[in-house]
Amino acid sequence: MNGAESLVRTLVNGGVEVCFTNPGTSEMHFVAALDKVKGMRCILGLFEGVVSGAADGYARMTGKPASTLLHLGPGFNNAMANIHNAGKASSPMINIVGEHATYHIKHDAPLTADIEGMARPLSDWVKTSRDAMSIATDGAAAIAAASAPPGQIATLILPADTAWNDAEGPAEVPDIPERAKVSDSAVEAAASALRSGEPTLLLMTGQALYQDPLDLAGGIAAKTDAELMSQGSNARLQRGAGRVPVERIPYVVEQALSVLEKYKHIILIGAKIPVAFFAYPNTPSLLAPEGCEFHQLADISEDMVDALERLADLVGAKRSDAVRQESNRPDRPTGALNPDTIAAALGAALPEDAIVADESVTTGRGFYPLTAGAPPHCWLNNMGGSIGLGMPLATGAAVACPDRKVVCLEGDGSGMYTLQSLWTQAREGLDVTTVIFANRSYAILRGELAKVGAGNPGRTALDMLDLSRPDLDWLMLARGMGVDGCRVESADDLNKALDAGFAVKGPYLIEVML
Amino acid sequence: MNGAESLVRTLVNGGVEVCFTNPGTSEMHFVAALDKVKGMRCILGLFEGVVSGAADGYARMTGKPASTLLHLGPGFNNAMANIHNAGKASSPMINIVGEHATYHIKHDAPLTADIEGMARPLSDWVKTSRDAMSIATDGAAAIAAASAPPGQIATLILPADTAWNDAEGPAEVPDIPERAKVSDSAVEAAASALRSGEPTLLLMTGQALYQDPLDLAGGIAAKTDAELMSQGSNARLQRGAGRVPVERIPYVVEQALSVLEKYKHIILIGAKIPVAFFAYPNTPSLLAPEGCEFHQLADISEDMVDALERLADLVGAKRSDAVRQESNRPDRPTGALNPDTIAAALGAALPEDAIVADESVTTGRGFYPLTAGAPPHCWLNNMGGSIGLGMPLATGAAVACPDRKVVCLEGDGSGMYTLQSLWTQAREGLDVTTVIFANRSYAILRGELAKVGAGNPGRTALDMLDLSRPDLDWLMLARGMGVDGCRVESADDLNKALDAGFAVKGPYLIEVML
Repeated sequence: MNGAESLVRTLVNGGVEVCFTNPGTSEMHFVAALDKVKGMRCILGLFEGVVSGAADGYARMTGKPASTLLHLGPGFNNAMANIHNAGKASSPMINIVGEHATYHIKHDAPLTADIEGMARPLSDWVKTSRDAMSIATDGAAAIAAASAPPGQIATLILPADTAWNDAEGPAEVPDIPERAKVSDSAVEAAASALRSGEPTLLLMTGQALYQDPLDLAGGIAAKTDAELMSQGSNARLQRGAGRVPVERIPYVVEQALSVLEKYKHIILIGAKIPVAFFAYPNTPSLLAPEGCEFHQLADISEDMVDALERLADLVGAKRSDAVRQESNRPDRPTGALNPDTIAAALGAALPEDAIVADESVTTGRGFYPLTAGAPPHCWLNNMGGSIGLGMPLATGAAVACPDRKVVCLEGDGSGMYTLQSLWTQAREGLDVTTVIFANRSYAILRGELAKVGAGNPGRTALDMLDLSRPDLDWLMLARGMGVDGCRVESADDLNKALDAGFAVKGPYLIEVML
Repeated sequence: MNGAESLVRTLVNGGVEVCFTNPGTSEMHFVAALDKVKGMRCILGLFEGVVSGAADGYARMTGKPASTLLHLGPGFNNAMANIHNAGKASSPMINIVGEHATYHIKHDAPLTADIEGMARPLSDWVKTSRDAMSIATDGAAAIAAASAPPGQIATLILPADTAWNDAEGPAEVPDIPERAKVSDSAVEAAASALRSGEPTLLLMTGQALYQDPLDLAGGIAAKTDAELMSQGSNARLQRGAGRVPVERIPYVVEQALSVLEKYKHIILIGAKIPVAFFAYPNTPSLLAPEGCEFHQLADISEDMVDALERLADLVGAKRSDAVRQESNRPDRPTGALNPDTIAAALGAALPEDAIVADESVTTGRGFYPLTAGAPPHCWLNNMGGSIGLGMPLATGAAVACPDRKVVCLEGDGSGMYTLQSLWTQAREGLDVTTVIFANRSYAILRGELAKVGAGNPGRTALDMLDLSRPDLDWLMLARGMGVDGCRVESADDLNKALDAGFAVKGPYLIEVML
């Protein structure tokens, strides 16, 4: 067998079952090997930002890495923004990047680039395979690196001759470390804060937001009069009726400061010390009040379930103490479309077990309250802030969970970054309803322009925030890629459109005119 | 004035008149400054690959840098593939990348990334401004760096507080070095090869392919029985009736070997020693025959006009000796669409002074002969091999040359990478006719799969090269972004469609069904 086949066999044996790709010449042996080895589903994206964002969505829903297959330095470049996002979400990912044959690199052909140099800032592990005999071992090491807690970005660079020369066979994946247990002193410090009688917050992200640890956290909060909150963005929050409800830190700095100002103690469970998304003149970077004490119970890579169990024991809390969200859907809204009526329409219609991939930016900031009592569902945010993740993330989540409805909430500006996702959804028959919020602007930037104190904007500045002239027509764009849909101009329309989208088993797009 | 305004004034004073952008919060002061300073045209792209590719097209047609304005690390990431292409084309470019305020970086907010680390592999010059007082000087240095021969990539990273804090005023651009003159010995070695009586090739790229140096090279070739050829890809070739005709080295290795095998001497004028685009098993990387002697008359940054003048003097050649292309349009083709009839339709209709942005990949390999005798025009190739350049390049060329028709020849697979370009063309009313070759596949990869010896491809492999299921509908995609067009299924249709597109003053798209 050749090197490519030894790598594909190593990946499949190591549990890597999906490859999102946009391959080129230097990856042809890898692609050919996919037909010789059973067990790897290969999914084409028409742009590499789709590929890496889909791998992120897949990883968030399965907890294990997909592979990406990318064409040399530029293919990696195009994937980088969503690799950035995946890294910030601690999603495991194995990027396989084709490279010129080892002996060809020195000739500086057009596609030659410093792939390692570009990969290092975004990767936890980078290696260029030296020859065909070492490629399986390198692949196994990449699986281990990607799977190490909390989930890492591994980038394996594959010169073409390492793929086509003879290899021995697949390699075994090294042992993957478990999540580390937190120290007793970390648990005791948290318990002591909870017993202080002073206002205390459990601030969570990562695995702490899955159902079972949330039950534990909810029990602790109920028992100690502490409160629960999540970061502003989270990789995957399990929420809805019957689950422990969690609000998130608001995006707007003033609102965040106001929400956090009462706390004397913040116990960090996977979360980091809360900071503003951006700096603004005369506004603090840190969102917690001065004098607030932070207690890190667990960092993002540690065993949060174990830590919460031990903390619950110390304070005498049980899962059953937790206050749970009642089942409570809002009435179907009528009238004009605005963030509240959209939230109500979503809350009224969201299917059980739905996966919400949320890149709704400005429109969606208030979606949580009216969807809180909907049937149990997952909510995925963009954690790296690089727009253009929503549709790829939905694509990957749908590949991971073919029996669940995926709902992609997408701004029109963000959606244009990686609209090619719709084609992959059509080809693979993925069950994604995409809701585009067509405010025809980078609406968030209108607020930001004011907040940074940039003065009264003139025509040039406003034009850079404006997506009109010409207006985008999302129905045309979707149909051009084989996805059907409809346009809605009222809340009643939206109710019907969501019903229609959720009834289809496959991709559907709703353009919400704002 | 604040730092942002001091930078914009520096840029405008330094001759930087266009900013292609997709800005975010950290760039808002720069955007706001654009309304305070006259002389900078600001053009929005809905994805950063459009932004950087357009800056490349602008630079190729004007010889001077545009600026790009990009939003932190991920905005730079999205621009990287076309920065790679621009770097390989020696296009001057000034990337201005917003960054968090200096004091905010340490808090590791979601968008925080190692921008310098990612920028270095693709940039000839990188600097992060330290404070508002130094930003104008840094901007002036960036202009000088970008403008240094042969044209370089300069990346200036702009923390938000350096933009909003007080600055003194604009800075003067340092002197920009002239292109270096080549040594006498380089000229003499070339002359000696030409006098050897052995088969000799003048292999050219860069400024050697502009009209006047081509006249000189043509005169030398005529006088010495040498031949002329260009690299396979070139930043800008001036060709057509009345100009000195130049063929290019074929992409396919066997063809290239065959074309070059007769030469004993290759004189390099801007060009590099010819190498295969990719390595293939049992195929050489180097395209020239063994024993062929290379003589570097001028590298890409040196003064090729002066070098050719001195060489012409030595061999007694004059511009007027050159053999020029006759005016000779093919007949309008009839019948089925194929690469030959498409080439004939183009050759029959190409407007005088057209700018051809060619990313036609497989379909366009034979377009040269039948367009050679069309009225004078420019031909721009992708020099870095990263697909997704054609439409952005056309966009930037149209901004640079509003009185010339731009013809973008684009594969459907490549076009999908940066289709957002069409929206910018519509907003700015750019005079671009885009011809999409809809073969509904990555057709080039079908050949490559065989050439790398990857065996008989199975269904999985073939699916990765196939753009059908669903078929893309380019008319819908274009109309979704405000660009009108038509679909053609015969050579007659194409003749009419080209007439229609060339008659419109503005963007138009022709989907050629293959």
